[in-house]
Amino acid sequence: MEHQSGDLVIIGGGEDRRGKCEVLGHFVALAGGARARVAVLAAASEDGGEVGRSYERVFRRLGAADVMVLRLEHRADAEDEGLCSSLASATAAFFTGGDQLRITATLGGTRLLDALYALHRNGGVLAGTSAGASIMSATMIVGGQGDEPARRAVLSMCPGLGLLPGTVIDQHFAQRGRLNRLLAAISQNPGILGVGIDEDTAVVVHEDTLSVIGSGTVTFLDGRPLTFSNASESGQEDPLALLGVVAHVLPAGYRFDLAGRRPLLPHSQDAASARLEPRPN
Amino acid sequence: MEHQSGDLVIIGGGEDRRGKCEVLGHFVALAGGARARVAVLAAASEDGGEVGRSYERVFRRLGAADVMVLRLEHRADAEDEGLCSSLASATAAFFTGGDQLRITATLGGTRLLDALYALHRNGGVLAGTSAGASIMSATMIVGGQGDEPARRAVLSMCPGLGLLPGTVIDQHFAQRGRLNRLLAAISQNPGILGVGIDEDTAVVVHEDTLSVIGSGTVTFLDGRPLTFSNASESGQEDPLALLGVVAHVLPAGYRFDLAGRRPLLPHSQDAASARLEPRPN
Repeated sequence: MEHQSGDLVIIGGGEDRRGKCEVLGHFVALAGGARARVAVLAAASEDGGEVGRSYERVFRRLGAADVMVLRLEHRADAEDEGLCSSLASATAAFFTGGDQLRITATLGGTRLLDALYALHRNGGVLAGTSAGASIMSATMIVGGQGDEPARRAVLSMCPGLGLLPGTVIDQHFAQRGRLNRLLAAISQNPGILGVGIDEDTAVVVHEDTLSVIGSGTVTFLDGRPLTFSNASESGQEDPLALLGVVAHVLPAGYRFDLAGRRPLLPHSQDAASARLEPRPN
Repeated sequence: MEHQSGDLVIIGGGEDRRGKCEVLGHFVALAGGARARVAVLAAASEDGGEVGRSYERVFRRLGAADVMVLRLEHRADAEDEGLCSSLASATAAFFTGGDQLRITATLGGTRLLDALYALHRNGGVLAGTSAGASIMSATMIVGGQGDEPARRAVLSMCPGLGLLPGTVIDQHFAQRGRLNRLLAAISQNPGILGVGIDEDTAVVVHEDTLSVIGSGTVTFLDGRPLTFSNASESGQEDPLALLGVVAHVLPAGYRFDLAGRRPLLPHSQDAASARLEPRPN
């Protein structure tokens, strides 16, 4: 069997860090549990050190063998030989939240990012929350108002880290009313799958299967069935027209087949799968 | 030809009342323009008199021949013979915003509501904004947090006025991030069409055709293609699962065919209608 890339854990922000820590506990278990060696990449915020240490405490409490916080304030930090080799010894890496543009602007094209890709190729688990979730897609959402009608101006995008190709990821999805900015994203290329992750909720990516964990839901917006949009001819401030987007809203236990673009019921309900077939018209 | 019921103008709240007043101007024109006699039904808020007078000024400025403000604070007001006969002389009625429950609780089962239905049956135009929009559906959304994952507890509903059957209407849709509460509504009966109207945006209902006007978009959520939901077995606080909801996001100029449940392109783009056909799989 081919060597497999590691799993991804993509968290919509606001995950429980004090109680049962369902989402972060799942990450530590995937990272190896008592054998987990987690690198915390605190690149997204100015107070990265403090944020990093708070995750360090949580991951230790959840049983990780070792946790190292990599402070990444400047691009020079991401060229540091020592940091790169400590990443090579990790079983998992975790991106904290803040501003996704800080992450890509600091790490893009650096040795540390190469080391991160190598870790992933070799089976290491990569996780990120909030800004650390957005960076997982090939093209990422940088910003944009969530509480406006869908229009191109509500959205700015840039190249992400490309760990989950074919998607655009948004976080704090229900809590910040971000349907329209995710719709604006997929209107510009309906081949892309929109993945809107609520707070305290995550998508776990194992090969082509995305599993939902946590207390909220993940909204998958499939633009491929789109019959018409005005995305190319409309101006920045014009409201968008989008006809025929298909949405799947999935809570914990449900999965999504990325290759087949179809939602999957929890294993216990497989008998009900027949109902997943489209109805005859 | 059969006598036709009048049009409906269902406004998502926050409509322009100072500038071009596109939405309200459209309403006054439908109501007869210089022959319009508009009854303002200020039933949704405690300061209904003040709200009503402010709409009176706008409608007069927009050229209505006559505007009367009906203050409806108590159920007894809605039994008043004088108010009922003044409604009979109107060409249109307009529900102001506030709390939709005040409208239905005050008007439900009264003579004034009978007079309102009669006005509509006889071709009178009925309009409402915000709370005044919600009441148009047969079952209406009373309240519920918009910024939470879709779950039954985010939503409370009650019988509305039933002027636009087969739908559930939500307003301030983009501005208050209300996707999830509208999804929760249609999950409980996917035969219902969810209609989420942005601020300064309206749906104009003429027979079976809904036309979008204003500066934002209207999101139509069609639950009929739904292949599976956990709505019946899930608890009030459980996140909902909804697989296969179809969404259409339509700006001004687009229409929706209620009977056929399909979006329609602007007339100028009818040549593009071919593209509306579902793609072969």
